[in-house]
Amino acid sequence: MLLVQQRPIITLTTDFGHKDYFVGSLKGVILGINQQADIVSISHDVRSYDIRDGAYIIRSAYRYFPRFSIHVGIVDPGVGSPRRPILVVSNNYYFIGPDNGIFSYIYKEDPPVKVIEIKAEHYFLKSGGATFHGRDIFAPVAAWLSKGVEYSNLGDEITDFKAFPIPDINRPDQDSIKGEIIYIDKFGNLISNITRNDIDQLVINKGNKVLEVRIKDQIISGLTDFYGQGEANTIGAIINSNGYLEIFSYRKSAKEALAVSIGKEIIVAVR
Amino acid sequence: MLLVQQRPIITLTTDFGHKDYFVGSLKGVILGINQQADIVSISHDVRSYDIRDGAYIIRSAYRYFPRFSIHVGIVDPGVGSPRRPILVVSNNYYFIGPDNGIFSYIYKEDPPVKVIEIKAEHYFLKSGGATFHGRDIFAPVAAWLSKGVEYSNLGDEITDFKAFPIPDINRPDQDSIKGEIIYIDKFGNLISNITRNDIDQLVINKGNKVLEVRIKDQIISGLTDFYGQGEANTIGAIINSNGYLEIFSYRKSAKEALAVSIGKEIIVAVR
Amino acid sequence: MLLVQQRPIITLTTDFGHKDYFVGSLKGVILGINQQADIVSISHDVRSYDIRDGAYIIRSAYRYFPRFSIHVGIVDPGVGSPRRPILVVSNNYYFIGPDNGIFSYIYKEDPPVKVIEIKAEHYFLKSGGATFHGRDIFAPVAAWLSKGVEYSNLGDEITDFKAFPIPDINRPDQDSIKGEIIYIDKFGNLISNITRNDIDQLVINKGNKVLEVRIKDQIISGLTDFYGQGEANTIGAIINSNGYLEIFSYRKSAKEALAVSIGKEIIVAVR
Repeated sequence: MLLVQQRPIITLTTDFGHKDYFVGSLKGVILGINQQADIVSISHDVRSYDIRDGAYIIRSAYRYFPRFSIHVGIVDPGVGSPRRPILVVSNNYYFIGPDNGIFSYIYKEDPPVKVIEIKAEHYFLKSGGATFHGRDIFAPVAAWLSKGVEYSNLGDEITDFKAFPIPDINRPDQDSIKGEIIYIDKFGNLISNITRNDIDQLVINKGNKVLEVRIKDQIISGLTDFYGQGEANTIGAIINSNGYLEIFSYRKSAKEALAVSIGKEIIVAVR
Repeated sequence: MLLVQQRPIITLTTDFGHKDYFVGSLKGVILGINQQADIVSISHDVRSYDIRDGAYIIRSAYRYFPRFSIHVGIVDPGVGSPRRPILVVSNNYYFIGPDNGIFSYIYKEDPPVKVIEIKAEHYFLKSGGATFHGRDIFAPVAAWLSKGVEYSNLGDEITDFKAFPIPDINRPDQDSIKGEIIYIDKFGNLISNITRNDIDQLVINKGNKVLEVRIKDQIISGLTDFYGQGEANTIGAIINSNGYLEIFSYRKSAKEALAVSIGKEIIVAVR
Repeated sequence: MLLVQQRPIITLTTDFGHKDYFVGSLKGVILGINQQADIVSISHDVRSYDIRDGAYIIRSAYRYFPRFSIHVGIVDPGVGSPRRPILVVSNNYYFIGPDNGIFSYIYKEDPPVKVIEIKAEHYFLKSGGATFHGRDIFAPVAAWLSKGVEYSNLGDEITDFKAFPIPDINRPDQDSIKGEIIYIDKFGNLISNITRNDIDQLVINKGNKVLEVRIKDQIISGLTDFYGQGEANTIGAIINSNGYLEIFSYRKSAKEALAVSIGKEIIVAVR
């Protein structure tokens, strides 16, 4: 069974933006229930309604937090519809949000011990509305959980929770890997689903062959070790801080330089 | 008399933005006076100089915070001019900011026990400048208050504090309500000053008549219960999370779809 | 020797933006090492790669924090290259970041007791990557320092740390000062490197002469005491909250009104 932290951490990842009263309301509700909670914003600038964007951001940050932290993820175009509010309990963390796929990466990387449909309405905030479950359901449930409420009291286990398919790499032949761009960061760096491991597998026992990365009409020769190693304005490839192959342009936006968007094919080959 | 919280909460709502050193300076000053303070940003993206925008954001978030929280609101185009710094003491909260109407909604919804003109200069930060009262007056006064300084020591009561007129709905006839758009959120949702209560009053004893919402050249039939209930791209009407009538476009910006701005007339009618 | 705060403050100034998982990862790493840390964001919207922009923001906020706060500054286009990670120990604060000039103002205004090249790899986060020293080096080192690790254990003293030249004013003749714009804030206010002191020196013993500020084709007569003193839309000059001469346009952007950017010459003269 999971324990609760002394000064419990609740992180927030949402598409609420920074202008409105949304994030402030969430924080107020949490502190109203548990003033010991340490609320940490991961991002409130997830692209509006973009579940995959939010899923990727949560996935890239959650593991750096202390064990038993409570991660709230809210990108929720279906708010108020029959889509279910859920609590995901893994061996290491709690995750709270709508059952719309926002925790798809988590299911794969930190497999849940249990997924619970949140039903315990006496822990909800009564507002009479159905448009702001962040404030009325997710925030108060996170706060009560951080106070030590047993997760088994929050609802019933479900097994048919939703996940979107995470794009897999494939191997057209034994000399190449085909992947795709799955995230673009604020610097315009293009992050693919090809890992350091995948590339290690590819090059193993290939002797003196040359590694090539192809995206759109660009052919990039070899990987660089850090951004500044590339010349200004040229496109480079690097294994990034999360272990993924990333295309960058030193001090520029590779996204703009290549006019590429999410889903774009990327190929790594030895020849 | 109001009490102070064990781990006192100070919220900030400003038009300072996130780029500059303004917000950081405020936080530093507060922590320099009371390191136990829990500083919570509600928003720093109030539209520059827009007192009504800030007033609406504070109003929509303040009540979710624990009792006795200190809410600092700074949208202050008149900084340095003779406009007064004030402390509003209600039965539930403290509010600190310029006397320019930023607490207009508060005066109506959580009526003040006292409004005090802040004059106790020995609690101010001495900077020699007159352009940053957020850092030099409001932040330190909030911090001292959170440390237990009696509010009566901060200045003298005033009764002529400023409030802007909050737009009222009116009833052109017994079958309709006329209101206006008072806020637009980051999703482009248009929030009116017509409440669930107003509509309940309108429809009472009206039998089988149909509810209609009119804005610009749009006629919306009935209210939806949640955003996803509307079809994509069509304009819908809903009672929002604060109990107000809101016009939305599912996954789109109603603001852009209708090219509407704050102040636009909206009519609810039964026929 | 510096002491550690009871509830140690770690501030963050970066160009990471608010959208991605960068800032969240940093916070997670810090809290994973020291859950008592109070993490305060100064800004994450430093212009991408702009070391001088970041340097000015840190400089304008650091001194308002309690003594012994740890200020982390990360604008790091050379991440992964041989540029060194450093810890700057002054009489009042700690500063942690890359050795690329980001602490140039600090060296002048709060001279370091010691600058240490951070080398103690056992305090780093092992990620295998070289693109995110914020998460892998600066955040964990700040957290360990906040836990009481002796700074002398973090590496060796260096004396050849980097600083960019901070633009000085000059005096073309005894009746004028020539300076330049060094920062532009979110309101479009133009901040120069001319101080209140410089102007006091200039006007001393000048009798009835008139003070004039010249920028581009504008001649501004005298200084105003607060923004609202100027008429709307006219350009004014003021000593700002940090003691610097600032050009503003009441409720407008002076930057846009004058089409001026950083580095632009500004002259103060008596005649």
